[in-house]
Amino acid sequence: MRNLKKERISGNVIRRLPRYLRKLDELLEKGVERVSSVELGRELGFTPSQVRQDFNNFGGFGQQGYGYPVESLRAQIASILGMDRGYRAILVGVGHIGQALIANFCFEKWGFELVQGFDVDPELIQNGVGSVPVAEMEKLPDFLKENKVDIAVLTVPKEAAVSAAELLIENSISAIWNFTNVEIVPPDNSDITVENFCFSDSLLALSYYITNPTRDGKAADDA
Amino acid sequence: MRNLKKERISGNVIRRLPRYLRKLDELLEKGVERVSSVELGRELGFTPSQVRQDFNNFGGFGQQGYGYPVESLRAQIASILGMDRGYRAILVGVGHIGQALIANFCFEKWGFELVQGFDVDPELIQNGVGSVPVAEMEKLPDFLKENKVDIAVLTVPKEAAVSAAELLIENSISAIWNFTNVEIVPPDNSDITVENFCFSDSLLALSYYITNPTRDGKAADDA
Repeated sequence: MRNLKKERISGNVIRRLPRYLRKLDELLEKGVERVSSVELGRELGFTPSQVRQDFNNFGGFGQQGYGYPVESLRAQIASILGMDRGYRAILVGVGHIGQALIANFCFEKWGFELVQGFDVDPELIQNGVGSVPVAEMEKLPDFLKENKVDIAVLTVPKEAAVSAAELLIENSISAIWNFTNVEIVPPDNSDITVENFCFSDSLLALSYYITNPTRDGKAADDA
Repeated sequence: MRNLKKERISGNVIRRLPRYLRKLDELLEKGVERVSSVELGRELGFTPSQVRQDFNNFGGFGQQGYGYPVESLRAQIASILGMDRGYRAILVGVGHIGQALIANFCFEKWGFELVQGFDVDPELIQNGVGSVPVAEMEKLPDFLKENKVDIAVLTVPKEAAVSAAELLIENSISAIWNFTNVEIVPPDNSDITVENFCFSDSLLALSYYITNPTRDGKAADDA
């Protein structure tokens, strides 16, 4: 059930959806067919009421009293997350992080196709990496004009982050998954979405919570 | 200035602190000595008022009218984040992700010392990885009894995640940085902090935002 109301849903709710999805995948693997909000909450460290509130943002996903049917709940959450849209991704920068993503991160599993890499290294351009072809960075603008690309995974070195992001924004990319540790701030007139994925930010949040232990909940579970 | 009131500060504020820190590091590298909330906000895509509100949680960090002194602001945020506590980390699982962290993530830069790895692979145990010694998993409980360890970086394979986490919790670890994609839910009587670092959760949040574009702000910037 899509979010019909089109109200803005809290980022904290959105960030719990992939966690529900992963847990439902685990339950499916175990052959579990129905799950209650109590059970799902226990598995994830949420209260049953938080589970129900989260789902109510999207219409509720069916009758609580009988538990949720796992397969259909999983399919609905996957659809809300856009996993059925056939999104296409490019990799901008095929150095260490880019190659590690190609080798170890299964884009397909999450509904994405990684169609093309871009780099400045002639050897990478000649050989590609695994099944992913790599082209010269100069070919990026034409590629974006001629192909449907939904997100750019930004994995260039820190020094090249800003210029690469500018190139992507000029060429109307709609989303950047940013691994560079450099903040990408889109211009005011742009509606690009930037998702930062930064190891040190995550470690430092954890570090904050062990340094300041007087609190009433776990690290990441704001409503 | 430490959070004297000891009220619970929103997780969204906490998660912006490392972003301020990284930006201040950039400004220091450029030799910038003072920065206003307007400038800092512009660099990060926050409003000046949000910057001031965030800092007010910690006492405000000095006189707004003159801008913040970059070096001292950086030092105060670093201290709030616990970067000056000499925290010690162990790596539980020294496979692909663990080795990639040793090779590419600078724990020291963020105030952590990576003191020991644990694995089941005899070759890793014999040779260690880089400068990090690796011991048998069986030695983990004794190591935790005999040494100060603040966080465990959990990088075992998915199948071993739950049992490894249980071992850590039984042996009174206070924090787990969880790379396994398996939810670790501490028992109710434990005050362990778990920080999940999950690539697919980040990609799927981005995927949600491009699928549901009617909103009034950027992906990660809830108050």
